[in-house]
Amino acid sequence: MQTAGKFIVIEGLEGAGKSSAVALVKQHIESAGHSLVTTREPGGTPMAEAIRACVKQQWQDETVTVEAELLLMYAARAQLMHNVIIPALKQGQWVLGDRHDMSSQAYQGGGRMIDSSMLDALRQITLKDFRPDFTLYLDVEPAEGLKRARGRGELDRIEVEHLDFFVRTRERYLSLAKADLKCVIINTMQSIELVQQDISAALTQYLEA
Amino acid sequence: MQTAGKFIVIEGLEGAGKSSAVALVKQHIESAGHSLVTTREPGGTPMAEAIRACVKQQWQDETVTVEAELLLMYAARAQLMHNVIIPALKQGQWVLGDRHDMSSQAYQGGGRMIDSSMLDALRQITLKDFRPDFTLYLDVEPAEGLKRARGRGELDRIEVEHLDFFVRTRERYLSLAKADLKCVIINTMQSIELVQQDISAALTQYLEA
Repeated sequence: MQTAGKFIVIEGLEGAGKSSAVALVKQHIESAGHSLVTTREPGGTPMAEAIRACVKQQWQDETVTVEAELLLMYAARAQLMHNVIIPALKQGQWVLGDRHDMSSQAYQGGGRMIDSSMLDALRQITLKDFRPDFTLYLDVEPAEGLKRARGRGELDRIEVEHLDFFVRTRERYLSLAKADLKCVIINTMQSIELVQQDISAALTQYLEA
Repeated sequence: MQTAGKFIVIEGLEGAGKSSAVALVKQHIESAGHSLVTTREPGGTPMAEAIRACVKQQWQDETVTVEAELLLMYAARAQLMHNVIIPALKQGQWVLGDRHDMSSQAYQGGGRMIDSSMLDALRQITLKDFRPDFTLYLDVEPAEGLKRARGRGELDRIEVEHLDFFVRTRERYLSLAKADLKCVIINTMQSIELVQQDISAALTQYLEA
């Protein structure tokens, strides 16, 4: 899809520093003179936020199946895409997403080990050929990311998974990020100053290209 | 899947008489000495009921995409299948479903005109080779069904669709029902007594086979 605006996505595990990165990237894009809409996934519309609540909560006496989790992620994405992201891009606004499709591939594909043919089918149904223009993947060692995230407070149903789940998720993230020519990997196992420098450098290069 | 119990489904448009049919079929199955669980779709578990509420309501200033509607139906189905239907069948109970997968094929495939390859992909993800043992499709002319349903009170987001949506849905229902060797079509454009006679006859034949 050719649009006037650009769709930039921040990806990474819990505790990778996505929120700080979103703030920094927002500043860069707005400084470059672009009007910006920020989104989060799953969520970002009233219905998608209701789906988010559904998929994130712990249900008593009910197992959340991997299939339902996966389908709900894509249902929320369909709502956000058609009601927020695509209309904004068409109006020439830029969109900054806190997570997008790479999260489903990493968490449900890598973490939950869902077959990639299922993920491909859902991407085809929901996204067709829509892809982000630029992605920053914030890489963190899972144990460190979880330590940071747990320091922040209460964790949701997915965030309480065991370490091996996040190890698989990170592995998938890394292989997706390396294969994606429109994705830059940021090492977040260094000081905040260096992380911010790397993010700023990557973004400046993208904006000037 | 070979199980001790059987999965019986009642299908049909709004106003076809599914609730009365469920009551009658329940009576027959229990009289034959089987322990029975009744379900409805979308719904039937706490999480699936939350998904039902999400998909059935009118959202203000937000279009419900056909993709999200479809994905939510299958997410609810995955929850019900794995938490209720399959465990009950494995324990030797019978399950009586007020709607199941044929509804998605008829409403989303026929009514919403979603490509059948998408539906096939979702059936593969969610159901694999799981199918009902016996289906009663209650056929009603859409205008008559809607008249009956509207007489009952407030309609949900899907029930307020225009007549041509239900005409397409019924056409798909009929072609699916005719092609399904485990499905009997009940004409509900006749007196309640005759409808009940036909349902009883079909069920008696199934139970004795």
